[in-house]
Amino acid sequence: MKFMDVHHGMVGITPEQLRAAHTADLAVEGEEGVHFEQAWADPESGTVYCLSEAPSREAVRRVHERTGHPAAEIHSVPFSV
Amino acid sequence: MKFMDVHHGMVGITPEQLRAAHTADLAVEGEEGVHFEQAWADPESGTVYCLSEAPSREAVRRVHERTGHPAAEIHSVPFSV
Repeated sequence: MKFMDVHHGMVGITPEQLRAAHTADLAVEGEEGVHFEQAWADPESGTVYCLSEAPSREAVRRVHERTGHPAAEIHSVPFSV
Repeated sequence: MKFMDVHHGMVGITPEQLRAAHTADLAVEGEEGVHFEQAWADPESGTVYCLSEAPSREAVRRVHERTGHPAAEIHSVPFSV
């Protein structure tokens, strides 16, 4: 299943910080059966969106918690165009 | 520039409805210099995320307003991984 999760409070995030957070997620995601496909950052409002393929919302939540950046919202997005 | 916009209140949206909304956006986007690249829907919470390439937030706003589904939030996302 696909999920879109949202992080808040990351005002001023840099490309390097986004890369580091994503790399940390990639390092542990396999243990939860998750794959983070892409992430987009808005440093002005401090918002980050992550698109993943995962077995459950809980699995996405666990990866982000283990890597120290819990998601504020995790939405199942069962279809896209 | 890349933008991620968010729509709320679309509980129960179907793949066909998402496709129709996206097609409507594609039909007028060129007049505003916008291209909607992808959109993801969560029918349970009624949330839709749209990723676009556009000259400004206002241009994204105008396309969605012209096609009858104004965005609740439009975030510039200057970088991604």
